[in-house]
Amino acid sequence: MEKFDVLIIGAGPGGYTAAVRAARLGLKTAIVERSEVGGVCLNAGCIPTKAILKSARVYETAMDMESYGIDLMSSENEGGFRSVPFRPDLSRINERKDKAVDRMRKGVEFLFRKYGVTLFRGNGEIVSPGSVKISPLSSVSEEENSFFVEADNIIIATGASPNILPLVPVDGEKIITYWQAISPEKLPSKMAVIGSGAIGSELSYFYASMGVEVHLIEYLNRIVPLEDEEVSAQLSRCFKKCGITVSVGMNVKKAERYGEGIRLFTEDKKGEHVIDADIVLSAAGVRPNTFGLGLENLGVKMSRGKIDVDEKYATSVKGIYAIGDVIATPALAHVASMEGIRAVEGIAGIEYEPLDYLQVPACTFTTPEIASVGMTEEKVRMAGIDYRAGKFSFVASGKAVAAGETDGFVKMICEKETGKILGVHIIGSGASEMIGGMALAMRMGAKCSDIAATIFPHPTMSEGIREVAESLCYPDIKNK
Amino acid sequence: MEKFDVLIIGAGPGGYTAAVRAARLGLKTAIVERSEVGGVCLNAGCIPTKAILKSARVYETAMDMESYGIDLMSSENEGGFRSVPFRPDLSRINERKDKAVDRMRKGVEFLFRKYGVTLFRGNGEIVSPGSVKISPLSSVSEEENSFFVEADNIIIATGASPNILPLVPVDGEKIITYWQAISPEKLPSKMAVIGSGAIGSELSYFYASMGVEVHLIEYLNRIVPLEDEEVSAQLSRCFKKCGITVSVGMNVKKAERYGEGIRLFTEDKKGEHVIDADIVLSAAGVRPNTFGLGLENLGVKMSRGKIDVDEKYATSVKGIYAIGDVIATPALAHVASMEGIRAVEGIAGIEYEPLDYLQVPACTFTTPEIASVGMTEEKVRMAGIDYRAGKFSFVASGKAVAAGETDGFVKMICEKETGKILGVHIIGSGASEMIGGMALAMRMGAKCSDIAATIFPHPTMSEGIREVAESLCYPDIKNK
Repeated sequence: MEKFDVLIIGAGPGGYTAAVRAARLGLKTAIVERSEVGGVCLNAGCIPTKAILKSARVYETAMDMESYGIDLMSSENEGGFRSVPFRPDLSRINERKDKAVDRMRKGVEFLFRKYGVTLFRGNGEIVSPGSVKISPLSSVSEEENSFFVEADNIIIATGASPNILPLVPVDGEKIITYWQAISPEKLPSKMAVIGSGAIGSELSYFYASMGVEVHLIEYLNRIVPLEDEEVSAQLSRCFKKCGITVSVGMNVKKAERYGEGIRLFTEDKKGEHVIDADIVLSAAGVRPNTFGLGLENLGVKMSRGKIDVDEKYATSVKGIYAIGDVIATPALAHVASMEGIRAVEGIAGIEYEPLDYLQVPACTFTTPEIASVGMTEEKVRMAGIDYRAGKFSFVASGKAVAAGETDGFVKMICEKETGKILGVHIIGSGASEMIGGMALAMRMGAKCSDIAATIFPHPTMSEGIREVAESLCYPDIKNK
Repeated sequence: MEKFDVLIIGAGPGGYTAAVRAARLGLKTAIVERSEVGGVCLNAGCIPTKAILKSARVYETAMDMESYGIDLMSSENEGGFRSVPFRPDLSRINERKDKAVDRMRKGVEFLFRKYGVTLFRGNGEIVSPGSVKISPLSSVSEEENSFFVEADNIIIATGASPNILPLVPVDGEKIITYWQAISPEKLPSKMAVIGSGAIGSELSYFYASMGVEVHLIEYLNRIVPLEDEEVSAQLSRCFKKCGITVSVGMNVKKAERYGEGIRLFTEDKKGEHVIDADIVLSAAGVRPNTFGLGLENLGVKMSRGKIDVDEKYATSVKGIYAIGDVIATPALAHVASMEGIRAVEGIAGIEYEPLDYLQVPACTFTTPEIASVGMTEEKVRMAGIDYRAGKFSFVASGKAVAAGETDGFVKMICEKETGKILGVHIIGSGASEMIGGMALAMRMGAKCSDIAATIFPHPTMSEGIREVAESLCYPDIKNK
C-alpha cells in the first residue's frame, strides 16, 4: 500500500494550494477529488462568475457607448441608441466561461504533475487516522474498486455546498443554486434571488444587466449584510438604479409551483407578500461538506456542523487537519488557500505567525465593486472602541470623473487614540484591486498618518484612500 | 495693500493643494493663476487624457464584444464582426472630456471659496521677497492694471511646459504637443510620436485605438525608459500587437513640411531613415516654467534650469519656496501635491517626516497599464545591491483569464539579505490601483515575507503581488 506524508481530501482552492505547497516542501503528497479539480471556486464560483460578469460589463459598455462618443453607424440607429439591438448570446458567453474554467483547471493539474502530487479521483473517507479509503465515483455503491491509501497527515479540505432552505426546495430547474445560475441556457424574464451575500448580489447584477427583471430578497435588514452599513446603502442605491427590486428584512416562507414559474410567499414588517418569478435563485449561504468523511466514527470534534481546529489547523484527532469552508473561519477561497499553506507548513515543521482573521479582505464583484478588510463601523462601535471614521466620495475623484465611474467611496475607520487602522471599506471601480494593499497596511500596523504620508499616484481611485486617511489625521481642520 | 501669510504662484496640482491646505491650517492664503485653475494636469494632462482614453477603451470593447458573447443583431453584421461600422465621434469624445475637466476645475474653485483662498487671475512676478506683482493677462504689456500683493511666504508652483526640440518646431497644427493632441478635431491617417514617456505612450495608444497608424519614436534604447526593462519589453510587444510601429534608439534629426504632412529625418544604428506622417506629436519631456518670475533679479539659486530647494522646499532666498515641476524632483502631479502639503506644513511650523523620493509611484495609462514604485532591477544592479527578483505572469491569474486580460505581470525586487522590498513593477489591468498599496508597503519597510503572509482577495490581479512575494521568500523551493 502506498504511503504518503500528506493526503488532502478535496482539490478546491484550499486543497490544491496545500498540495502544491506540500510537494514543493519535499513532502510526498496525494490529493483526492471526487469531481473536477478546483472546487466550487474554480468550477462554479469565483472564476466562472468573473467570466460571465465580464460579458455583462461588455454588454453594458456596448449599450452605453454613445455617452463615451462611440457611435454605431447604422440605419437601425434611428429612434435612439438604446433601441440598437445588441444581444447577449448565452451559448457563447457560457462557452467563453467554460474555456476560462477549463484553462484554470488544466493549470491546477499541470501544477500537480510538475511538483509530483498524486491525484486520486474518487470519494475519500477516513477509516482511521492515517488511512483513507478511496472509492472511484462509478463504484461507490459496489465498493469493488475501492482502495486504501496511507498518510501520516490527512487534511480535510472538502469545502461547502449551497444551503438548502427546506421551504424553498431546489429542483435545479425552477429553483436553482449558483451551480445552475452561472450557466444560463436561456434568460428568464423574471427572477427572484434569495440572499444578498456576494453570490446573490453578483448574480443579481449579472441577470439584471442581461435584461432580466430581478427581485433581490434579503432576510436581514440590508443587502450585503456583512459589509459596512454605508456600503450596503450605496449598493442598494446602485442596484435600484439598474432596475433591481430590493426587499430587505423579508422572510421567504414558502415556494410553490405557479403556472410555468414559482410563487414565493414572503413576509416583512409591512405584512405578507406574494412574489412571482420564472426562476428562483437560492443563495442563502453555504454549509460545510462534512458528511461521508467518516468523521463521526473517528470522534473528530465539531461545533455547529463545523470541524474544530487549533491554530495549526489540527483537529481533535492526531494526524487529521481541516482547512477552508469546513472550519469556522470565513468561507472564502483566499482564506482556504492561506490555511492550506499554513497547515502544510505546520506539518513540515516550519514556524509561522498564525493568520489574523481580522485582516481578511472580502470582495463582491458587482458594479460598483465592493472590497473591505477589518471591522465595520457597527462592529467597532459595538466593541466599545473609541474611533474616528471618514469617507471620501469618488464624486470628488478626477479619475472617477474622467472614467465616468463616480459611484461609491472609500471609508476608513481608525482607533482614535493611536490612529491605527481598524477597517477599510471601498465601494467603486477598482475596489477589489486596492484592498490587498489595505490588508497589508493592517498587517504592518499602519496608522492613518502612515497612509496620509504615502504618495499615491494621480489620477487613480486609490488617491481616495490617502485623502480619507489624511482627513482622519486632521479632524480639527476637516471642516474649518 | 493686502497682506497674506502665503501666496502661491500657479494653481496646478501642486499649487492648489498647497493653497487649500494652507487655508485649512488657518493661514491667510492667496493663489495666482494666469490661465485656468488646475494646471497642465487638470487641463491638458492627467484628467483629459484619462477621459479620452476611457472613450478609446469603450471603442475597443465595442469592437471586441463578439469575443465576450455580445452580438449586434444587424443585417450589417454579415461578413464578420470587425466590419460593423462603429465610429468614434471626436466632437462628442472631446465634449465629454471637456465636461470632466470643467467639473474638476469647478471643484478646485469651489474648494478655494469654501476654505477662503483668494484667487488672483494673472501673471505673478516676485519683485522682492514678500512682494508679488500681479498682472492681469489682458494688460501684461500695458502694466496699467497690475497691482502688488504682499505675503510672508511665497511658493513657486508654476509647473512645466513641453520640451521643444529645436529641429522639430512645434506649430500647433502639423507638429503638435499634448495641448493639441488631447483635443483632436479630426484623425490623421498617419501620426509620428516623438518620445515614449507616459505622455507619448498614452497618446500613441489613444490614437492607435482610434484607428490611426502610429509610429512611436524613442531616442533611448527602449520605450517607457524610466520603467523596468521587462516592463518596456512587455509594453513594446503589446503596442506592436495593436499595430503601433515602435522605433527605439532613434534620433530625429530634422522635420520638414512634406506635401500636406511632415517628413522626419531620423537615424538609428542601422542608418538614416525617412518617416512621413500627417501629424507629429512632440512628447520629448518637459521643461520647468521658471521664466518671468523675477528669479534672476532675486538671486534664487538654480541648477540646470531648476530651482534649488532644501528639505522644506525653501529656496536660497528667505520666504520663497518652490515645489513641483520647477524643482529637481520627479515631474508628477502627485509629487507636486505632496510637496505643496509639506511646504505649507513647514511654513505653519508642523513637524513632518521628509518625503522619500525612492517611494514615488508612477503610472502610464496605456492598455495594459503600467505602475511602479521604487527601483528598477537595472538600478538595483548598478547600485551594487545583492538582490532577488521575481515575476508573476497574469497568464496564471484566474481573474485575468476570466476577464480576458492576461497581458502583463507583477515583478518584485527585494534585498537578498533582509527581504526588504526595493521595487515593484506592474504591467497589466488594474496596475495603477494596486501600486499605492506597494508605496505604503515600502514606506512601512515591508519585507517580501510580510506581503507573502498577507491575505490578498481571490480572484484579483493583486494576488499576483502575494504570489511573487512568496516566491522571493522561498527561492529554494521555487523550482523544485
